[in-house]
Amino acid sequence: MATIKLIPKEEATGKLQEIYQEIMETLGIDFVPNMYQAMASKPSYLEANWNRTKTIMQEPGKLDKLTKEIIAVAVSAVGGCDYCISVHTAAVRRLGLDDEAIVELMAVVDLFIGLNHFNMGMQVEPDEKPWHG
Amino acid sequence: MATIKLIPKEEATGKLQEIYQEIMETLGIDFVPNMYQAMASKPSYLEANWNRTKTIMQEPGKLDKLTKEIIAVAVSAVGGCDYCISVHTAAVRRLGLDDEAIVELMAVVDLFIGLNHFNMGMQVEPDEKPWHG
Amino acid sequence: MATIKLIPKEEATGKLQEIYQEIMETLGIDFVPNMYQAMASKPSYLEANWNRTKTIMQEPGKLDKLTKEIIAVAVSAVGGCDYCISVHTAAVRRLGLDDEAIVELMAVVDLFIGLNHFNMGMQVEPDEKPWHG
Amino acid sequence: MATIKLIPKEEATGKLQEIYQEIMETLGIDFVPNMYQAMASKPSYLEANWNRTKTIMQEPGKLDKLTKEIIAVAVSAVGGCDYCISVHTAAVRRLGLDDEAIVELMAVVDLFIGLNHFNMGMQVEPDEKPWHG
Amino acid sequence: MATIKLIPKEEATGKLQEIYQEIMETLGIDFVPNMYQAMASKPSYLEANWNRTKTIMQEPGKLDKLTKEIIAVAVSAVGGCDYCISVHTAAVRRLGLDDEAIVELMAVVDLFIGLNHFNMGMQVEPDEKPWHG
Amino acid sequence: MATIKLIPKEEATGKLQEIYQEIMETLGIDFVPNMYQAMASKPSYLEANWNRTKTIMQEPGKLDKLTKEIIAVAVSAVGGCDYCISVHTAAVRRLGLDDEAIVELMAVVDLFIGLNHFNMGMQVEPDEKPWHG
Repeated sequence: MATIKLIPKEEATGKLQEIYQEIMETLGIDFVPNMYQAMASKPSYLEANWNRTKTIMQEPGKLDKLTKEIIAVAVSAVGGCDYCISVHTAAVRRLGLDDEAIVELMAVVDLFIGLNHFNMGMQVEPDEKPWHG
Repeated sequence: MATIKLIPKEEATGKLQEIYQEIMETLGIDFVPNMYQAMASKPSYLEANWNRTKTIMQEPGKLDKLTKEIIAVAVSAVGGCDYCISVHTAAVRRLGLDDEAIVELMAVVDLFIGLNHFNMGMQVEPDEKPWHG
Repeated sequence: MATIKLIPKEEATGKLQEIYQEIMETLGIDFVPNMYQAMASKPSYLEANWNRTKTIMQEPGKLDKLTKEIIAVAVSAVGGCDYCISVHTAAVRRLGLDDEAIVELMAVVDLFIGLNHFNMGMQVEPDEKPWHG
Repeated sequence: MATIKLIPKEEATGKLQEIYQEIMETLGIDFVPNMYQAMASKPSYLEANWNRTKTIMQEPGKLDKLTKEIIAVAVSAVGGCDYCISVHTAAVRRLGLDDEAIVELMAVVDLFIGLNHFNMGMQVEPDEKPWHG
Repeated sequence: MATIKLIPKEEATGKLQEIYQEIMETLGIDFVPNMYQAMASKPSYLEANWNRTKTIMQEPGKLDKLTKEIIAVAVSAVGGCDYCISVHTAAVRRLGLDDEAIVELMAVVDLFIGLNHFNMGMQVEPDEKPWHG
Repeated sequence: MATIKLIPKEEATGKLQEIYQEIMETLGIDFVPNMYQAMASKPSYLEANWNRTKTIMQEPGKLDKLTKEIIAVAVSAVGGCDYCISVHTAAVRRLGLDDEAIVELMAVVDLFIGLNHFNMGMQVEPDEKPWHG
C-alpha cells in the first residue's frame, strides 16, 4: 500500500476534479493513475507537476514521443522504480518497440551505467581531443 | 589523474596493440581514449569490453545510433560520470542534436528521475489497468 | 526472506541481550526490529551502529527530531529502501506530518533530485555570486 | 564548461526575458543563475520548471522554507550534484543553520543512506508492528 | 513478471541453444537463469555479455573468485537489484562466508556508502598527504 | 572548498583533541584527514562515527583488511565520491593490489552494476533454483 491515502476520482471536487479530468482526457484513459492520486493531497503540486509533464511530454519538439519514452525507460531502469519501469515499458511497446528492441535499449543502459562507474572509479580524465563511441 | 597508469599506444605491443588499432579504426580517430588506456593493464578485460561495446553500439539493430547515444547521455546524467557525459553529448551533437534538443533530452531525464523517486518514496502501487504518459 | 538469519530476542544472550533490551527501551517498543536482528550475527557491529544511531537521533542538537526524520524519509526515497521508507514515514506521521505535508516533502525530493541530474547532465558550473532558491 | 550554450540575460528577449526578470525578482538577485540559463534554449521547459519550482518552494504550506532547503541539501548530497549542494547549503546558512547544524544534517544523511543499503543488501523484510527510530 | 518474454531453453535453437548449453555447463546447472533468458531476444547481446562475464569471472587473475563475488554483493546492495543480491549472496555462501562474515561485508558497505555521501555533501577536498583507513 | 569550516588540529582542545590524537595514532599518520576535520563541528558525531569505523575496519573478523578496502573501493566507485575513491585506492595499493588487480576490481564493478540495472529494468524475477555466477 502507498504510504499516503490515494484520492480516488469519486472524491475529487473543484480544481482537483478538473485536473483529474484533464489527465484522463490527455492520456486517453478512464481512470486516474495511482501516481497522480498520490499527489492529490496537495492539488497545487499535482497541477504544477502535471503542467510540466504536459509541456515536456506532449508539446511537439525536436525529440519525438518514442525517443522520450525510451529515455524514460532508461532513466527508470537506473532509478529503480518498478512503477515507472512498467508504465514506460508499456509506452515504448505501444509506440512500436518489440522484445528485441527492448533488449537493445537495456543493453545500452547496462553498457553505459557500467562504464560510468568504471570511469568514475578510475577517475579517468577528459581526453585531449573529442571522440564519440 | 587517474588512479592507475594509463598505457599509451606507444607502449602497447602484441594483442594490446591490435585492440588499440581496431578501436582507433572503428571510431575513426588517431588516438586511444583514456577510458580504454585505463583498461589496458588487463588486456583480456579491455578486449571483452570492447567486443561487447562493438556489438551493442556498432551492430545494426532496431534502435539507431542516435537513439543509443541519447540513452547514453541520459544514463550518464543519472550515473554522474563527467567523462561519459562529455563523450556522449559530443556524440549526439555530431549525430544532429542541437542545444534545444539537448535541453529536451535533459528535461525528460529531470522529469522522470524525479517521478521515480516520488513514486518510490510514496510506495505507489501498480495501476489496475495499463497506461502510458 | 532476509539473506541471513535474523536472531530473535529469545535467542539473544549476554551482550546481545543487553543491546536488544536497550533498543526496545529507547524506542519504546516490545520487539526488536528486523533491521537490528539482521545485524546481530556480529554483535560488535550492532553495538557500534546502535551507539552511533543513538548519538545522531536521540541526542539533543540543533535539528529537532522531526527534521531529522524528514531527512530520513527524503534520503530513503532517493536510496530506494522500502523498509526504511516505511519506518521513517511512520515516524514523521507520529511527529505530526499529515498527507499534505508528506506530499510537500516528496515534492521537494522530486524537484531537487531532478534538478541534480539536470545540472550534472549539463555540467552546469558554479555561479559567480551566491544565491538560494 | 556546460555542455550547452548558456543564454545570458543580455540576449534574452520576449517570453524568455520575462521569465528571467521574474526569476531575479522572486529570488532577489540581479543575475540569472547558470542553471536557468542552461534551460533557456527551450523556453517552454524553463517556464514549466520555474512555475513548478515556485509552487513547491515559494507557496506557503505545511513545511517551512528552511525544512525544504534542508531536504534539498540532503537530496543533493545523495544525488551528488556539486552545483546543487552549494546553492542549497548557502540557503540553509542564510536561513539560520551553522556548521554544527550542517554536520548534524549530514550525519543523518550518512546514517540513513548507509542503513538503506544495509537493509536492501540483506533484503530485510517489514516488521510486523510499526516503530520509528 | 519480467517486462519481456523470457525464452526458455526448449525454444532455443541454433546459436542461442549453443550459448544456453555453454552457460549451463560453465555454471554447473541444468537450467538457464532468468537473467540470460531475458537477454535472449537479442542473441548477439546475450553472447557478448556472456563472453565478457566469463572473462571477468572465470579467468584466473589477481583477485580470487570469492573476492569477486564479495564485490558483486557490495555492488548489488548499492545498486538495489534483489535478483542480483540473491544470486551473489548464494555465491559467497557457497564459497565460504557465513552469516557473521556477511554482516561484516554489509557493515563495510553501510560505512562507506554513508561516508561517500557525507564527503560529497560537504565537498570535502583531497588531503595534502595520502592515508588509508 | 568544503561547505563548512574544517577544524585544524591546532584549534582542537579537550575531547576533540583526544579523538584527533587517537585517529592519527590508529592510522599512523601525523595529520588529521579532512573528512574528520569536517565532522569536528559536532564532536559527538565525530566520536560516534570514528568508534564505528574502528569497530568495522580495525577489529579482527572474518574478512581481512584488504577485502574490506576492496569493498570500500567498489562502493566508492558506485557512490561516486572522489575523495573516498582516492583514499581507498591508496589503501588497496598499500595492501598489495597492482594496476592489473585494480582493473579486475573495477571490471567486476562495471559488470555487476550494469547487470543490476539490466535486471531491474527488465523486472527479472527470481529463479526457481539457486545458482551463482
